[in-house]
Amino acid sequence: MSTVILIFGASGDLTWRKLVPAYYSLIGKERLTTDITIIGIAHHDLGDQEFREHMKDGIQRFATHEIDAELWAEFSQNLHYLKMDVLDESLYPKLNDYLREKIPGEQNRVYYLAISPALFIPIISNLCANGMMTEEEGYRRVVIEKPFGHDYQSAAELNRHIHSIMNEWQVYRIDHYLGKETAQNILFFRFANTIFEPLWNRNFINSVEITVAESVDVGHRGDYYDRYGVLRDMVQNHLLQLVAMVAMEPPAVLEANALRNENVKLLKSIRPIQLDDSVRGQYIGYRNATGIAKRSQTPTFVALKLYVDNWRWQGVPFFIRSGKALRQKVSQIVLHFRRPPLQLFELQELEHMTDNILMFRIQPDEGIQLSFQAKMPDSRAGRLVEMSFDYDTSFKGQPIPEAYERLLLDVILGDASLFSRSDSIEESWRLVDPLQKAWEENTGPALTFYETDSWGPVESERLLSNAGYNWYRIDENGTGGEEEE
Amino acid sequence: MSTVILIFGASGDLTWRKLVPAYYSLIGKERLTTDITIIGIAHHDLGDQEFREHMKDGIQRFATHEIDAELWAEFSQNLHYLKMDVLDESLYPKLNDYLREKIPGEQNRVYYLAISPALFIPIISNLCANGMMTEEEGYRRVVIEKPFGHDYQSAAELNRHIHSIMNEWQVYRIDHYLGKETAQNILFFRFANTIFEPLWNRNFINSVEITVAESVDVGHRGDYYDRYGVLRDMVQNHLLQLVAMVAMEPPAVLEANALRNENVKLLKSIRPIQLDDSVRGQYIGYRNATGIAKRSQTPTFVALKLYVDNWRWQGVPFFIRSGKALRQKVSQIVLHFRRPPLQLFELQELEHMTDNILMFRIQPDEGIQLSFQAKMPDSRAGRLVEMSFDYDTSFKGQPIPEAYERLLLDVILGDASLFSRSDSIEESWRLVDPLQKAWEENTGPALTFYETDSWGPVESERLLSNAGYNWYRIDENGTGGEEEE
Repeated sequence: MSTVILIFGASGDLTWRKLVPAYYSLIGKERLTTDITIIGIAHHDLGDQEFREHMKDGIQRFATHEIDAELWAEFSQNLHYLKMDVLDESLYPKLNDYLREKIPGEQNRVYYLAISPALFIPIISNLCANGMMTEEEGYRRVVIEKPFGHDYQSAAELNRHIHSIMNEWQVYRIDHYLGKETAQNILFFRFANTIFEPLWNRNFINSVEITVAESVDVGHRGDYYDRYGVLRDMVQNHLLQLVAMVAMEPPAVLEANALRNENVKLLKSIRPIQLDDSVRGQYIGYRNATGIAKRSQTPTFVALKLYVDNWRWQGVPFFIRSGKALRQKVSQIVLHFRRPPLQLFELQELEHMTDNILMFRIQPDEGIQLSFQAKMPDSRAGRLVEMSFDYDTSFKGQPIPEAYERLLLDVILGDASLFSRSDSIEESWRLVDPLQKAWEENTGPALTFYETDSWGPVESERLLSNAGYNWYRIDENGTGGEEEE
Repeated sequence: MSTVILIFGASGDLTWRKLVPAYYSLIGKERLTTDITIIGIAHHDLGDQEFREHMKDGIQRFATHEIDAELWAEFSQNLHYLKMDVLDESLYPKLNDYLREKIPGEQNRVYYLAISPALFIPIISNLCANGMMTEEEGYRRVVIEKPFGHDYQSAAELNRHIHSIMNEWQVYRIDHYLGKETAQNILFFRFANTIFEPLWNRNFINSVEITVAESVDVGHRGDYYDRYGVLRDMVQNHLLQLVAMVAMEPPAVLEANALRNENVKLLKSIRPIQLDDSVRGQYIGYRNATGIAKRSQTPTFVALKLYVDNWRWQGVPFFIRSGKALRQKVSQIVLHFRRPPLQLFELQELEHMTDNILMFRIQPDEGIQLSFQAKMPDSRAGRLVEMSFDYDTSFKGQPIPEAYERLLLDVILGDASLFSRSDSIEESWRLVDPLQKAWEENTGPALTFYETDSWGPVESERLLSNAGYNWYRIDENGTGGEEEE
């Protein structure tokens, strides 16, 4: 059966950079057949030919499968552009006719909303109203890009609306962080091995750290960003989803609903975040960027201490942080293990003993690193040494695919494992909302300011040091090193 | 206080290759002061000068500290040779006088028996009879090289004799395998880290393998070897000590008696070895070597299945093997972990899933390797990947010292942690004796023959495969690879 991909918002960056290159690569790698038609929809005046040229440029720059003339010829034939005002209800029946004409016979359809969130409800309502979500002749799936709501209420409303006109299983809420190899590998690593899961609890783990740092500043996204801030932009989705992956219980099978049940269970176990366990920062210079209010209180950095109140994690702090204009672009998860009973060793040997550490690097240089004590040769003392596993080295010749490739393929395969279910989204908003509200009312710890090219405000260090911890120091080549002092 | 090292059997290879180079290196590295006098004793006619030249040659070839003129001048001044018939009782008072004259004032003494085991009792009896073991003016310590007895009875007799005339704490029974960095690191690794000890038991470990393979054949040791065989030459000492290090309970402190208590406790927990759990082999060509009986039944290869009957190890087989004329010189310990519950994953993914493995390489290339499952990029399947820690790379510029250096220093420091206590020796003979006796009576599985440059007789593979296991395949560069088929 033919599959049609309708991209709403096709003139945006995402379509050109990620979506079309990903579809092209999937076909090039023979994960998808060429029986796929992509139709870009936007309000610009554009012909098929112009659209194709633009997409070809994107493929040349970003696709993981090299462009070849023959494949491109075939692929581009099924690439179309449609100018349409998506708010004009009267155009939807025409759109439906157009699709039936263009692709005769039964067809599967993916509606990809790469468009402003304000348009989500109008578009899906119109699709439903015109029978375009009915799965009688092939499936009908909607992919929704973030942000999915801007607080609990708006997300719940959007979900309610969706559920009133279509089925949850037709909805794919995308979080491209979850499509990254290392993010997926967290689950694999935990559950396909014997040696990690027995250690994965409060008996052996002392603290968990998650850092998702951006080196870029707000750039040209000022208008959007100043209204959202870092909590909504990063914590509600990426960081809380990473917490869930690291901390959740094993599902019975690696199947979408089983996974998402565990995901929601974990999110529900997170204790409401205390204001005093939060640090909000804004980089110096943020207010000068285009689109930012002159006295903006919007945080561009956040550090939080979370607790997961369940049998596995009781008492283990989860420190998470994220920010813009930081020293380096890096995403990593660090598990600090408890100290072993070291009575065995002499005092002078203990000075050099640091805790065992397991680190997942999500970017750059995806990999895993285990730090442990080894005896120094020709000495009675130990030293922290590292074993590491690095995707690039271990899987030579198998380039790490774009996160979007995996996710777009999953949509077509109907595997929603790596997509967020409505309740997961709502739970994470429920966690973030009170903090967001307090900050907007300027209660709790004050907004702090930090230099660009730093690791955030000093209060972020204090959040940990007050509790006897330290952020794992990230060195300049992104692989992490000793503990920060 | 001055320290005197008396080496009985100083004309042998050990003195030239290991002992004197080790003392020299310890001084060069400033672990020992130059206030050390070494006196070589043997029955050859030799002058101090000749002895020194020979030792200088040994240092140049084997010492880990480079020879330098100044240090050598000082060192060689304290290097002497004494011709003596060690069976002549009347010479001992003279020896004592000689030592008092040579080194005025109080002195510590180490008597190093680098000599035939038949001479152990005569020498120490004479030392005692002449008050030369009395610790009134400095310590008096005896270092005994293997073999310590040739069966339980002879070892027990030797111990009884020793205990009747001196204290156990004066005796250092050397097993140079225990002086190797990785052997010591096993304890360090287990007890200085949080992440391994929780896994170190029958809940998570499926089997343990210990291989100590030699590539050399019997060479010029035929006369000795044909009387001893592999069980006595390798299993009673090296292999059982390695089993103890891998399997023993944590001591309260890393102190000699605490460690040795745990060592003996472990050896006592080993179930008597079943004849059917043993394989004995002889390499083809062994009987043609010098000093070997034409119809010799002496095994040059052994593979055993052991069980440690305690709470930690109940039901986990320990496979150990050792032999001569094998494909490669390699010593390694491999822990195979149980499979995790893999219901999670789809059937086609399971095909490529092998168990987690932790390997200690003792030689060559000392290091640690952890094999685990990682998700293959751009795929839903996993693959066994490796993280490894390698002494050479991780401790660049810190050459791994000769095992003897550590051990000889420990004798002087009075730390017997890495030496065998009498009860440990007796326990290991008690394990080996019944097998040795059965083999000598030619009961149980017959002697098998194997090609040189192989991994031993096929029966060794069968010992494991019958129980559903396989020897971890050792690849040509000694780092180990996939499971053997």
